Amino acid sequence: MLSSKEAGVTVKKSENFSDWYIQVVMKAGLADYAPVKGFIVLRPYGYAIWESIRDILDKRFKETGHQNGFLPVLIPESLLSREADHFAGFTPEVFWVTKAGNNDIGERLALRPTSETLAYSIFSKWIASYRDLPLKINFWNTALRAEIKATRPFVRTSEFLWQEGHTVHATEEEAEQEVMQILGIYRELIEDILAVPSVRGYKSDKEKFVGAKYTTTLEGMMADGKALQMGTSHHLAQNFSKPFDIKYLGKDTAEHFAWQTSWGVSWRLIGALIMVHGDDKGLILPPKVAPVQVVIVPIHKDKDAEMVKQKAKEISDELKAAGIRAHLDDRDEYTSGWKFNEWELKGVPLRINLGPRDIEKGQVEFVRRDNREKMLSERGKLVETANLLLSSVQQALFERAKALLLSLITIPKDYTEFKTTINEKGGFVPAGWCGNQDCEEKIKEETGADIRVIPFEQDKMPQTCILCNGEAKKLAYFGRAY
Amino acid sequence: MLSSKEAGVTVKKSENFSDWYIQVVMKAGLADYAPVKGFIVLRPYGYAIWESIRDILDKRFKETGHQNGFLPVLIPESLLSREADHFAGFTPEVFWVTKAGNNDIGERLALRPTSETLAYSIFSKWIASYRDLPLKINFWNTALRAEIKATRPFVRTSEFLWQEGHTVHATEEEAEQEVMQILGIYRELIEDILAVPSVRGYKSDKEKFVGAKYTTTLEGMMADGKALQMGTSHHLAQNFSKPFDIKYLGKDTAEHFAWQTSWGVSWRLIGALIMVHGDDKGLILPPKVAPVQVVIVPIHKDKDAEMVKQKAKEISDELKAAGIRAHLDDRDEYTSGWKFNEWELKGVPLRINLGPRDIEKGQVEFVRRDNREKMLSERGKLVETANLLLSSVQQALFERAKALLLSLITIPKDYTEFKTTINEKGGFVPAGWCGNQDCEEKIKEETGADIRVIPFEQDKMPQTCILCNGEAKKLAYFGRAY
Repeated sequence: MLSSKEAGVTVKKSENFSDWYIQVVMKAGLADYAPVKGFIVLRPYGYAIWESIRDILDKRFKETGHQNGFLPVLIPESLLSREADHFAGFTPEVFWVTKAGNNDIGERLALRPTSETLAYSIFSKWIASYRDLPLKINFWNTALRAEIKATRPFVRTSEFLWQEGHTVHATEEEAEQEVMQILGIYRELIEDILAVPSVRGYKSDKEKFVGAKYTTTLEGMMADGKALQMGTSHHLAQNFSKPFDIKYLGKDTAEHFAWQTSWGVSWRLIGALIMVHGDDKGLILPPKVAPVQVVIVPIHKDKDAEMVKQKAKEISDELKAAGIRAHLDDRDEYTSGWKFNEWELKGVPLRINLGPRDIEKGQVEFVRRDNREKMLSERGKLVETANLLLSSVQQALFERAKALLLSLITIPKDYTEFKTTINEKGGFVPAGWCGNQDCEEKIKEETGADIRVIPFEQDKMPQTCILCNGEAKKLAYFGRAY
Repeated sequence: MLSSKEAGVTVKKSENFSDWYIQVVMKAGLADYAPVKGFIVLRPYGYAIWESIRDILDKRFKETGHQNGFLPVLIPESLLSREADHFAGFTPEVFWVTKAGNNDIGERLALRPTSETLAYSIFSKWIASYRDLPLKINFWNTALRAEIKATRPFVRTSEFLWQEGHTVHATEEEAEQEVMQILGIYRELIEDILAVPSVRGYKSDKEKFVGAKYTTTLEGMMADGKALQMGTSHHLAQNFSKPFDIKYLGKDTAEHFAWQTSWGVSWRLIGALIMVHGDDKGLILPPKVAPVQVVIVPIHKDKDAEMVKQKAKEISDELKAAGIRAHLDDRDEYTSGWKFNEWELKGVPLRINLGPRDIEKGQVEFVRRDNREKMLSERGKLVETANLLLSSVQQALFERAKALLLSLITIPKDYTEFKTTINEKGGFVPAGWCGNQDCEEKIKEETGADIRVIPFEQDKMPQTCILCNGEAKKLAYFGRAY
């Protein structure tokens, strides 16, 4: 058995962010490396967080008229290559199946890097008339992209859990509304549930989804000053409906090509959670997504063990009955100190330490994970206090993350300061941009920063491009990113 | 737009079972063919049935202490081959990835045909002491096996949705209990929810899971006299823990190899549902698994359209509030006749036809899908009647399926009758078996029937082997199968 110290995180978040991150992922029991480089396995605790995210999102998708479906993982090369830009974008990272058993297969098969091509070749069979529209289908699956860059659990892996939504509409406006409705659902999930603030807007043409007319994004800022793309929603216009022949007979009895969208978020959101909220003790989970919201640790000597455990169980049952995800840790093989460390490492938002004295006094001691403050509650107000504290932790995490984001937005007075900021501090650097891809590329080359997002809010647009001093067309947020 | 007749099933179940099955799958909107041969796509209605099955099973798994996890789809060849029998069993049907982008990868990677090898190479890192046991993890994913035999949606496809459970225990007895507990959970799902009766018992050594000590199975009987393996639960003993080095330090401070189980059910269960319950009009779904339990079709002339729709919506809302999955079909583009056919095709257990006269009289007309009987209920007893009828349909489907199963069990007086039965009638043919694999293989060769299941109930064991007339060791159920 490891000592509590070995089992805990041994590096500080502020000193070696990268090692700290890996230790949190591994030691909190979220994930482990798979035998193939760049792939990970999710342990039950990590998967439970994904289940929370999935269930919340799935409910919202269904409430807004989306349904789920299933697509195979294998896509024939001829289909993947039908939209040229799309193929060119994905082909360097496609895994190819070339054999089945001992036989060469004919045409090679791609492991799904994303399903536009497969989905749309099939949608075209399902859509005949306006009566069949809109078609709004979501797929919970994995995507596979052979990563050449350094991989990192959740943030960049060669296979990742995600959802991909694909919709077909009669008009361009409807497709636009869909793009924005989904972005709104993602915002709710990311900000209100995961407590991670974001900057929302458009991707530049260079950074948009290959094959899209435009891409909208939610961009987050991690504690080390690097940005993370947390979700994207694409307007595909008729870029796919034409090569994939998705046509419908309108009420006007004429044939029209349909308008489409696609959108997705992945387990990257778990990476965001860790990087934004975690501290030197480990993970800190926002209550709304935590698989365990309150852990109860009975503290006792042998003589009153049964009595304390019994009372602890009553507390656990009462919390569960009130809809709170409570867990009673009554393991005998571990000390209370070990348990405290373990649950802090796992980021459980609230802990109840229950000893004989608390029972005697009719009180309950809560410990908050986010600021480690203790609070005594009357036993009779157990559920009420737990709910108050959970919502207070949720709020505090968002505010702390918001303050972090704001502290990492630096408006540069010129390109020299732009470069210094990117190199020394990181974060988002909002600047004027002439809209020219040459400037975008040169900045990337010289600083490693690209345009993360062109925010919807453009009211503070500088007059000139940060690089060429030509007239600014857009306010863009530059930054280095995962 | 298709005519109602074209949209419906055009062959009889009794005349061409195979075509009938494909038409039901396609026309009820459950699935469609994918571009790669042997692969299918699930449409939302088909996926919704899978979601029902998944949610019910997932709840039971969690109640019994199982947790979910995630494993990648790619398994290195060296890992897949570590247990020799297992590898020999799966290798003819493995899809191999040999390239990533434009590069050859080193060792080739198998697309998961099943995850024992991958899971156990990782479990061995997670298990150190008795404190880490039992470990009970389930994975909801797909498995890929390149099918050489004729494929059929849900029943035999080269990729299929399933769950695979993998557990590790300190003792052989605990592993045995797990095998049987899971078989019990499968029985509940298959009989009590899907209304499909089964014969439960062991597989013969020839038919067991490659690498298992023994396999338990639930064997179903389809309406055409062919058996379908609906779920299996395997005792792996130490067959994998030894090559994969899954050891734990016991309370006795000695090291022990662990004991293991694995088990799974797939979307094949949807195939069973269709084949057992469906009729010439299409699908018939057992209420407990039906995505829509009651469909309400308003019937009206133009003048009272709004009033009838309003009342229909009240009925739909009232049913939903009572926890019944109701759907109001208020589409204007289709006639009532078209809607009746469509919902019959889709197998919705109950339909409410609501017209102005019903509203006037304060009554509701229900139509049962299983026997097409109509029943009038007082409007005030809407929910009560719906619940009664739903449970009555559920029961009736099971009884009908049970009668079907019993009618397809034929005890032969000798091997001649055995062969005639297999050839002319099909079904299960219970017979004495000497336990010799030669007899098992010869029967398979001569009749196409194999041992589907050696039932747990052995009290009616014949005295002699049906083939060699040697002493019978087992009562075995023979049959041809999907």
